[in-house]
Amino acid sequence: MTGNVKPETPSEKLARYRLSIDNMDAALIHVIAERFRITKQVGRFKAENELPPADKDREKNQIIRLRNLAANADLDPDFAEKLLNFIIQEVIRHHEQARS
Amino acid sequence: MTGNVKPETPSEKLARYRLSIDNMDAALIHVIAERFRITKQVGRFKAENELPPADKDREKNQIIRLRNLAANADLDPDFAEKLLNFIIQEVIRHHEQARS
Repeated sequence: MTGNVKPETPSEKLARYRLSIDNMDAALIHVIAERFRITKQVGRFKAENELPPADKDREKNQIIRLRNLAANADLDPDFAEKLLNFIIQEVIRHHEQARS
Repeated sequence: MTGNVKPETPSEKLARYRLSIDNMDAALIHVIAERFRITKQVGRFKAENELPPADKDREKNQIIRLRNLAANADLDPDFAEKLLNFIIQEVIRHHEQARS
């Protein structure tokens, strides 16, 4: 049957890549949605127990850990750190809303 | 055996939440690492075929789709859109590096 396989056109190839990207994006959205479900519980828990919304030591350890995970997965550690900070800013905004 | 279960202390509860967040973050890093592996291939493919690095129609459709996925997962669609833009900016940076 070799030779009967039609070669992929450039636009078919691009469409194939994009389906994979769309799957990754759906995974991303669902993981982040679940992460926020947990951090919202943490926010309520911290507000009930009068704990501060941010924890600098915890954040420092998260950043070190994620930079290592990123490096091992061939992802730019600087980008991973920027991304985590972007997400943490949103979490702190939720925590502040929870106590206002 | 009811009554023999020691109640969780606040710090144990916080530690439990944090282990879940750490797992979500590891998932996040690996999904994003895989996403960039694909978009780097797309970047190379676009450069080889002299296609422009950005595609406004594609980005518009991605944003609509992700906002819907986010809403269904109880994630703020505005945050999902900001996050996608953050990631797309990094992808465009990679594509521009690929052709420089």
